Amino acid sequence: MKKKYVYFFGGGKAEGNGKMKSLLGGKGAGLAEMSRIGLPVPPGFTITTEVCAAYYKRGRKYPPQLKAEVEANLRKLEKLTGKKLGSIKNPLLVSVRSGAAISMPGMMDTILNLGLNDKSVEALGSLTKNLRFAWDSYRRFIQMFGDVVMNVPHAKFEHELEEIKREIASRRGISRAQKLKQEELNRAVPDTDLGVEDLKNLVNRYKKIFHKATGRSFPQDPQEQLWLAIGAVFGSWNNERAIAYRQINEIKGLLGTAVNVQTMVFGNMGDDSGTGVGFTRNPSTGENKLYGEFLMNAQGEDVVAGIRTPLPLERLKKENVRVYNQLQQVRRKLEKHYRDMQDFEFTIEKGKLYMLQTRTGKRTAQAAVKIAVDMVKEKLINEKEAILRIEPKQIDQLLHPMFDSKEENRASSEGKVFSRAGLPASPGAAVGQVVFSAEEAEAWKKKGRQVILCRIETSPEDIKGMNAAEGILTVRGGMTSHAAVVARGMGKCCVAGAGDIVIEEAKRMMKSGDKVVKEGDWVSLNGSRGIVYIGKISLVPPQLSGPFATVMKWADKFRKLGVRTNADTPYDAAVAVKFGAEGVGLCRTEHMFFSGRRIVSFRKMILAAPKFRALSETLKRGGDSEEKKELEEELKKQKKQLDEALAELLPLQREDFEGIFTALKGRPCTIRLLDPPLHEFLPHDEEGQKELAKSMGLTWQEVKDTVDSLKELNPMLGHRGCRLGISYPQITAMQTRAIIEAALNVAKKKVKVKPEIMVPLVGNVKELKLQKEVILNTIEEVKKEKHIKKLPFSVAVGTMIEVPRAAVTADEIAQEAEFFSFGTNDLTQMGCGFSRDDAGKFLQEYVDLGIYDTDPFQSLDTQGVGRLIETACRLGRKGRPNLKLGICGEHGGDPKSILFCHKVGLNYVSCSPYRVPIARLAAAGANIKSR
Amino acid sequence: MKKKYVYFFGGGKAEGNGKMKSLLGGKGAGLAEMSRIGLPVPPGFTITTEVCAAYYKRGRKYPPQLKAEVEANLRKLEKLTGKKLGSIKNPLLVSVRSGAAISMPGMMDTILNLGLNDKSVEALGSLTKNLRFAWDSYRRFIQMFGDVVMNVPHAKFEHELEEIKREIASRRGISRAQKLKQEELNRAVPDTDLGVEDLKNLVNRYKKIFHKATGRSFPQDPQEQLWLAIGAVFGSWNNERAIAYRQINEIKGLLGTAVNVQTMVFGNMGDDSGTGVGFTRNPSTGENKLYGEFLMNAQGEDVVAGIRTPLPLERLKKENVRVYNQLQQVRRKLEKHYRDMQDFEFTIEKGKLYMLQTRTGKRTAQAAVKIAVDMVKEKLINEKEAILRIEPKQIDQLLHPMFDSKEENRASSEGKVFSRAGLPASPGAAVGQVVFSAEEAEAWKKKGRQVILCRIETSPEDIKGMNAAEGILTVRGGMTSHAAVVARGMGKCCVAGAGDIVIEEAKRMMKSGDKVVKEGDWVSLNGSRGIVYIGKISLVPPQLSGPFATVMKWADKFRKLGVRTNADTPYDAAVAVKFGAEGVGLCRTEHMFFSGRRIVSFRKMILAAPKFRALSETLKRGGDSEEKKELEEELKKQKKQLDEALAELLPLQREDFEGIFTALKGRPCTIRLLDPPLHEFLPHDEEGQKELAKSMGLTWQEVKDTVDSLKELNPMLGHRGCRLGISYPQITAMQTRAIIEAALNVAKKKVKVKPEIMVPLVGNVKELKLQKEVILNTIEEVKKEKHIKKLPFSVAVGTMIEVPRAAVTADEIAQEAEFFSFGTNDLTQMGCGFSRDDAGKFLQEYVDLGIYDTDPFQSLDTQGVGRLIETACRLGRKGRPNLKLGICGEHGGDPKSILFCHKVGLNYVSCSPYRVPIARLAAAGANIKSR
Repeated sequence: MKKKYVYFFGGGKAEGNGKMKSLLGGKGAGLAEMSRIGLPVPPGFTITTEVCAAYYKRGRKYPPQLKAEVEANLRKLEKLTGKKLGSIKNPLLVSVRSGAAISMPGMMDTILNLGLNDKSVEALGSLTKNLRFAWDSYRRFIQMFGDVVMNVPHAKFEHELEEIKREIASRRGISRAQKLKQEELNRAVPDTDLGVEDLKNLVNRYKKIFHKATGRSFPQDPQEQLWLAIGAVFGSWNNERAIAYRQINEIKGLLGTAVNVQTMVFGNMGDDSGTGVGFTRNPSTGENKLYGEFLMNAQGEDVVAGIRTPLPLERLKKENVRVYNQLQQVRRKLEKHYRDMQDFEFTIEKGKLYMLQTRTGKRTAQAAVKIAVDMVKEKLINEKEAILRIEPKQIDQLLHPMFDSKEENRASSEGKVFSRAGLPASPGAAVGQVVFSAEEAEAWKKKGRQVILCRIETSPEDIKGMNAAEGILTVRGGMTSHAAVVARGMGKCCVAGAGDIVIEEAKRMMKSGDKVVKEGDWVSLNGSRGIVYIGKISLVPPQLSGPFATVMKWADKFRKLGVRTNADTPYDAAVAVKFGAEGVGLCRTEHMFFSGRRIVSFRKMILAAPKFRALSETLKRGGDSEEKKELEEELKKQKKQLDEALAELLPLQREDFEGIFTALKGRPCTIRLLDPPLHEFLPHDEEGQKELAKSMGLTWQEVKDTVDSLKELNPMLGHRGCRLGISYPQITAMQTRAIIEAALNVAKKKVKVKPEIMVPLVGNVKELKLQKEVILNTIEEVKKEKHIKKLPFSVAVGTMIEVPRAAVTADEIAQEAEFFSFGTNDLTQMGCGFSRDDAGKFLQEYVDLGIYDTDPFQSLDTQGVGRLIETACRLGRKGRPNLKLGICGEHGGDPKSILFCHKVGLNYVSCSPYRVPIARLAAAGANIKSR
Repeated sequence: MKKKYVYFFGGGKAEGNGKMKSLLGGKGAGLAEMSRIGLPVPPGFTITTEVCAAYYKRGRKYPPQLKAEVEANLRKLEKLTGKKLGSIKNPLLVSVRSGAAISMPGMMDTILNLGLNDKSVEALGSLTKNLRFAWDSYRRFIQMFGDVVMNVPHAKFEHELEEIKREIASRRGISRAQKLKQEELNRAVPDTDLGVEDLKNLVNRYKKIFHKATGRSFPQDPQEQLWLAIGAVFGSWNNERAIAYRQINEIKGLLGTAVNVQTMVFGNMGDDSGTGVGFTRNPSTGENKLYGEFLMNAQGEDVVAGIRTPLPLERLKKENVRVYNQLQQVRRKLEKHYRDMQDFEFTIEKGKLYMLQTRTGKRTAQAAVKIAVDMVKEKLINEKEAILRIEPKQIDQLLHPMFDSKEENRASSEGKVFSRAGLPASPGAAVGQVVFSAEEAEAWKKKGRQVILCRIETSPEDIKGMNAAEGILTVRGGMTSHAAVVARGMGKCCVAGAGDIVIEEAKRMMKSGDKVVKEGDWVSLNGSRGIVYIGKISLVPPQLSGPFATVMKWADKFRKLGVRTNADTPYDAAVAVKFGAEGVGLCRTEHMFFSGRRIVSFRKMILAAPKFRALSETLKRGGDSEEKKELEEELKKQKKQLDEALAELLPLQREDFEGIFTALKGRPCTIRLLDPPLHEFLPHDEEGQKELAKSMGLTWQEVKDTVDSLKELNPMLGHRGCRLGISYPQITAMQTRAIIEAALNVAKKKVKVKPEIMVPLVGNVKELKLQKEVILNTIEEVKKEKHIKKLPFSVAVGTMIEVPRAAVTADEIAQEAEFFSFGTNDLTQMGCGFSRDDAGKFLQEYVDLGIYDTDPFQSLDTQGVGRLIETACRLGRKGRPNLKLGICGEHGGDPKSILFCHKVGLNYVSCSPYRVPIARLAAAGANIKSR
């Protein structure tokens, strides 16, 4: 069978269809599909990608039968349109466009208005009654054709245009016309100031340039124009730009590009012409109603340029009810066919509607949810499809108060933007008065004011101030900086790393460019976009009922992955449960130590513990007896202080756990034992140290010595995690006791409890074994003291998998662990060798260069760190078949990472409370996709 | 067939043999073996481990036939010795000892002198003509029996002994006798002051204690004593101590312990008795001659106690030529049987020689090498066995000058030790005058003096001073501190981390305890033992010819692993080649930057590069045109400075490489591109920064800003390795150019070259791809400039595998890498999550607790990091079958790690020059063992 090289579309039919992307390219297939379903597409034909392949195979020559096929299709096109290429009465004008199976924006060559020549331009002028438009189209065609097809330098045409403008300026008596800078010239004489005669003049000059550069006249024969244009498009497939693009984006295995030849239509042929864009439903609210705007007697560019204000589509009913009704039909047809909300572009040429393009329409989260639910009701799609229609990340918008969009737009247009340089670190919006310290934030809050806490960066000491604030703004730090992580955990709006802001804390003010904000001034933060506004913008509350609730119900029905939350307080746990969390996957006990009296006792412990340990070591090694006695005395003293501190901490921790257990009502709660290096809890500045020394009855030197002795060159890889528990088993014992006693107290009140104790930073099974011993011994002690034979609840002991060594020895570790929870933040740090605190310096560059697709701290590096996780899952389940597997890093709330977690068979993901709905939706999507 | 429960040994025969360890335990099998080969072993019998198993299986009851078997063997023993258990004329005394298949020191229960009672003690007194000895033996027996067999608290016996001593002290008129402290009492009345009557008195009191504690009299029937003792030994198998020991050491699958009942012999039965220890060859020099010492009329304890000075064995020829000749026969028999140098213990009882024990003898490196070579000559062993006889680590001693051992001993006994607290950081010995700064070291050296550089710790800026010094002493830092690593690289003696020394640099002195050393004072360092002496000790030069050369020749014959060296200078490379290195496995280019003018140019580069990069980034992002122009100006300036600095560095680097290539004479040379973070090259103190600013024509603030901008929280995981090359491709290009131009220059002189370019810290194949592009493009540039079509040598491009992500994606990385070199230092840091700079705080604890067998930075963690290496090897060879694999971390010189490298199939190891012979020997051993 002879190969078919050209596919016709138009007149409610098409030889191709939407699935033939590899043969017709994306654009060609799309035009064919629209034609097939009876949309009024300007007719045309597509030359296949196989021709492109054959063209290169034959040394840049076409297959013999191509010419005949193109001519036959051209005749068909002329017949269908009633126009004729090169006609001096009703000339057919066409566009010639490339289009491969995979979109390659920027490498595509496009020629518009093909078919114009010295004669047809006049015909076009008469037909449109707009000579200026005709000649402008012609001069643009020459320039485009010269540039794209014949390689005439673009700049030469631009130079002539400039010359003409200078002449006009001179004519107008503008002094120094010849010396005006480019920009000044364009201001003085815009393109629209060129009249018909100027344009005719310009066409002549362009023709001369064309002749000089190519050695031939500008081709007047439209057939010749067409073949030259087709050749140029095929040639563009292998230009340097395109080859580089395919290499960089690893696009392989394509035959080549197709060429689309399509009738030009014009919306500026008079008052019965027009152009517009539309959506089949409201993309902002989701309302099931035609939505869009249009302009009569205009081209697409006019809508974009914003010179004239477009009208809402409703108004078309008045202007042209026939076309309006036709659009309503189109809307129904599109939705029925594509089974999704579509956007589209249309042109009305002399009262006739043409559809130029349609795509799946972008929409707000609110619209996405409403449309998905409505379409299920309308039986257009089923529940599973509905879930896949909603981008999980997007629904974050629904969980927080947002700005009233009209007010926000107004603030933006009125120059109220203070900074756009920040990162959208924690979504939502917040309005408040500016303060520059955590203490102020607390104090103002107590006085009943709303505040925005503005800091260069935040540290754990700022937690209470952050909690008091409506929103947080930082100048330094990325998406995973302290401010960002804590704010997301709190569900609080945060803009982080707004590097163009300079905070002068002493002066209680901040600057950005020439704008100044002082303490007490009102600002508004958009944490979903990273923008800071001066002044107040009204908030719209989140909407969690209605369609949102329906979608979440469906998500729970279809997901296999459990969804837990990272929560350190009863409040967080309660919020997360409200959002559908099935338990706590990570309760960081250290965060508890920062509030209230805890920090005092905790610091007391830290000041005693290292000394106690050092003394024990020294004594173990022996020494003369005089010295020994002194050391023993000192040891006793430190032990007493340590024991006292632990005894003070015990009831406080117990109380914390009681609150969380109560909030969880029997849902499991994974509690991580103390993790961060001790120095993080001590002040590093002289003032803070002196204060601490005073309150502890120590000298400044003593405090300073302890702080110094705890300093580390690479704290990330230092004395932290279970290494602390191994050096100070007392701490592990105290924390275990607090957990078990709390669980007993809550159980007494007939509330179910399910504690899971998690040992952090295990790299070697023996670490876990030793810590488990302490945990189990402590549990036995508590039982003995309370005369309990069997606890009225089960206690699981497990570990984080966050050290690469743990991942590759997971079979051994599973012997001791009842569950694994992947700490993917640290696993990424150690696996990739990136310090999260420092990698910002080069990670953006790495993403730009394509070394990583995305920041591996935001979306799991499934290719690398993922391999470690897969290995750990495989080995872990080998070591213990019923091992429970979860993830509790930041990635637990990232949809792409959740897909991976589903694939490797984790039991659950855990994420910050406000990400729980996202995770539920993503988990459902992952399961639906993977079936 | 009935099971045999008791095995007899003695009289030149034995029912068991040396291979029956699982049945007879280690000790029982050894005694049987010695008897079998005709050595005069005091006869006895062994009750098997199967009895122990049966004993527990039957609920702590013996199998029925045991009693009869033991009695039969006892009769046999009495017959052979002519003595009788409980006899009042010639009593048989026995020891009862445990002994499992695997030695469990500390859990073994031992009872000596069993058979003594109120009557036989008198007989022993008469026979030995030493009543005191007899009664002392008796009282010790009661105490031991009471403690071990009957659980009478040890302290009670000790208390009675103390009481008697106080009575003696009172008798002697010592005032406050009742109030003397324990130590004072022991000084006033040593054990030896107790007379026969005192001891008789003590025996009576001990019996009372025994009765009071056990409710029964001390058993006078030796049969009863024996069965109680056997029961105690079997019981000790499952005491808490033993169970814990087996758990900790993971000893599994043993049946139980055996019980050895053996005739007691006494060397203190008069002048025809004696005791001694010997070696079949000289353990110090290896000379093939009987060596050892003895004491007549003495027990083993007397030799150990050092009260009398033992005589050299040669003297025994005079004292008792018959026994001396007998010992010569024993020596020959032992060597013929065990085919190795043995040590042994013997006792002469009334002119009769008894062999009590023999083991493989410990020996110095020198002796080990000589003995191995001699034994091959003597056809006792073959070459392969000879290699396995030498502990590779030990031979390090032979490569460096060492102290004359007599002089060192004298210095030690004369109180010349200044510090013992240091680590043996780099082996050998050094003598010199103390200086406290690198500058002084250089200055004094120039004046022709020998100096020892003493620093709190060293930094890269001290390199020249270290090079000028004979040896290096530091107060802080471990085996992998800067001082230790650099000194080992230089083959220079170093004692590191001598924490008891306080250096007061300003006063030009240091203290340790009450000893003071001032600048210019002479000290001597023993870097193999970590000791510092005050004064001069003579040095003995290393001996690399003779037996050492022979062993090395054999090693090369049997090894499969290649051995390369880590060398950064032509000198190091030459030293390593002399030691047998087959190439350079790691040439760290950054070390080159510290010498001479290089550091100036290098710093110039660092001061320009980050600014250049930041400006480029800013410009890429756009901005208003006014600002843009300014930035572009600044960019030009920085680019100029950067280019200038690189242009200055190029010839210097080229020169370095030329030197190394020349020294290697065609051996391959793996050159690692710039690795450490840039801030390491800049001064961090104000003074240094100001100086630098001045020399660069910058303000202090400018320098400080750059230093600050380069600071990192976790530099280990920061902007370093290939991440620098990706941010600053100019540096990669300059280094590549220097390598290729140097290789061309050397090749011109008809010297072969084989450069291998290594990209460090790759975690993702795309990093390597990008860097390789820069490298290959630069090579093409050089070729074009020099009009060369094909380089006259091959250039391989490969990578370090030191990031866990690289190990688990090695298949991908191998697509771009021609070789892998495992950077096990960093791989351990990231794999285990240990910062080498900080982990010292807890790693010792970890080793003590058995979490790791050894410090994973000293010996490869084969169980964990090893899994990453195995994975990388497997995946790497999957990606590229002919991939070359090597290791260049510190582990490359560690024998245990080398065994692992052999097993996983690496092609070569690379280590510091002075470790090359060790590696050669270890590699041969690994291959021989694995066959």
